[in-house]
Amino acid sequence: MKKCWVLLMSLALVLSLLAPVANAQPSENNDVLTKAKSTHVQIVLFDGFDLLDALAPYEVFAAAGMYSGGAVTVELVSAEGKRSVPSGMNGPALEAQAALDPNRSGIILIPGASGKPAGDTEDAIPNLLKQTMKTGLPDMMKQAFNNKEVTVATVCGGTLLPAMAGLLKDRYAVTNHIGMAALGALGAIPIEARVVEDGPRLVSGGGVTSGLDVALYLVDREAGPQIANAVEKLFEYEKRGTVWRAEGIAPIDFNTSSKATEEK
Amino acid sequence: MKKCWVLLMSLALVLSLLAPVANAQPSENNDVLTKAKSTHVQIVLFDGFDLLDALAPYEVFAAAGMYSGGAVTVELVSAEGKRSVPSGMNGPALEAQAALDPNRSGIILIPGASGKPAGDTEDAIPNLLKQTMKTGLPDMMKQAFNNKEVTVATVCGGTLLPAMAGLLKDRYAVTNHIGMAALGALGAIPIEARVVEDGPRLVSGGGVTSGLDVALYLVDREAGPQIANAVEKLFEYEKRGTVWRAEGIAPIDFNTSSKATEEK
Repeated sequence: MKKCWVLLMSLALVLSLLAPVANAQPSENNDVLTKAKSTHVQIVLFDGFDLLDALAPYEVFAAAGMYSGGAVTVELVSAEGKRSVPSGMNGPALEAQAALDPNRSGIILIPGASGKPAGDTEDAIPNLLKQTMKTGLPDMMKQAFNNKEVTVATVCGGTLLPAMAGLLKDRYAVTNHIGMAALGALGAIPIEARVVEDGPRLVSGGGVTSGLDVALYLVDREAGPQIANAVEKLFEYEKRGTVWRAEGIAPIDFNTSSKATEEK
Repeated sequence: MKKCWVLLMSLALVLSLLAPVANAQPSENNDVLTKAKSTHVQIVLFDGFDLLDALAPYEVFAAAGMYSGGAVTVELVSAEGKRSVPSGMNGPALEAQAALDPNRSGIILIPGASGKPAGDTEDAIPNLLKQTMKTGLPDMMKQAFNNKEVTVATVCGGTLLPAMAGLLKDRYAVTNHIGMAALGALGAIPIEARVVEDGPRLVSGGGVTSGLDVALYLVDREAGPQIANAVEKLFEYEKRGTVWRAEGIAPIDFNTSSKATEEK
C-alpha cells in the first residue's frame, strides 16, 4: 500500500508540474492537505459478524483511500484488540488488526451478525447480538456516541447493537427489514430507507448490501463526490436510494392522514 | 451450520406433517432429495485476491444453503490447499479450507485481484494475475474446463485468469470494464453485460459487485428461483441485468450495420 501512495504521489507531482498554475512545493503541500483531511474508519468485528456487512464497506473505504492518495484509511478492529474473529454461519475468520478506539476521530462502522434470521439457538442472529452485548463493545459504543469527532455507522443488524445499548432512543435509523420491529421496540424511530442519517454523527443502513450505500455516502461526505464516483465505476455499482434525513417537507401519509382526503 | 440443517430439517418435518398429502418418510425422502440435488461451490483464493469478488458470492451461496436446507454448500479453497491467503491492497487474509479439486462436480468460482487497476508494480492487478499464473491454478483450471460436471464462474478480473491460460479462445465472457480490451486481446469475445453465460459451463461477471449477480443466477439455476429470491430479500438486493447468452434474435447494431438504415 505504501508503494501505492508513493506512486500516486509521484503521479500527482508529475501532473502538478504539467499544470498551468505553478506551485513551489506541490508534493509537500499535497501531503499536508491529505493529512489534514484524512478520515480514519474503524470497522468493528465481533464473533458471528456478517462478512459482507463488514467487508463491502471495508473495500469501498480502501478503494477510496487508493483513489484519494490516502485521504481515507480503514482498518478492522475488535473490542478485545488484535485477534482472529470468526464470522457467522461457520464462515471464515478475519484478523482484527487493533483494538477499537472510541476516542479516535473518524468513522466507527458496526456490521450485523450472520446466522439464522430468527430463533434463540446458538447460531441465530438475535443470540449472536445478545452475546456481543456481553463484551466490551456496548461501553465503547457509548464512548463513541459521546465523542463529537466520531460518526457511528451501522449496517444491517449492526443497528440493533447500539439500540440494545439504549443509544438509539428517539433516533431515526434503519436495519434489515427483519429487524425493523425490534428496532422500534428498542426505542428508535425506524425509517424505511436504504440509508438513514440522524444528525451528521449517526448513519445507518438496511440489509446486507446497503453497506455499499452507507460507505459510498460517507466517502462522498468525507472525501468528496469524485472519489465516491471513481469507486462506483471500479465496483460497477451505483449508490442506491436517497439518504433519508429529518429535513425538508415531510410527505403526506396517504394511508393514515385525513389531510390526504382534504387536499384531493 | 450442522445444527442449522438439523433445525431446518426438523422444521421441514413439522411442515410436511401439517401438509395435506401424507408422506410415509418425509424426513428421509427430503434428505435423499437434498443429497441428490446438492450443488457444491469451491471459491478459489490466491495471493492478492479481491475480498468482495470472493465473499459476495460466498455469502450468497451460504445463505442459499441455509434457506434450502443444504442443497447448496460452499467452501473457500486454494490451489495450494489449506492455508492463509492474503487479499489484495494489504487487506485481511482468509483461510482456505482445502485444496481446489477440479474433478469435483459443481461450481468453481474464480475471483479477481485487488490492487492498482493498472501498471506493473508489485501491487498492480496485472502483476497479481501474472503471479497467479505461475501457481498450480492454470493447470487446475484446464482440468475444470475439461470436466463436464463443473461450471466455472468468474468475477471481475477473475475472468482474465482462464483467458491468460488460453481457455477462453472464441468464448463469450465479461470482466471489469477496465479489463475488457485485455480480455479481447487474449482471444475471448468480450460482451458488455453484467453476467455472461457461454454454454452452461462458463458464467462470467463484470466488475466487483456483479459477483452478487453471478451467484444469484447460479443459485436460481441450481436450487431454483424461490431460494434465489429468499436470498435477495435477506440481502436487500435484486439481481441486476439479463444474463447474456448467444441465443435468440441478435439486436441490430445501429452503429455499424447498414441494415439499420435499410429497415427504417
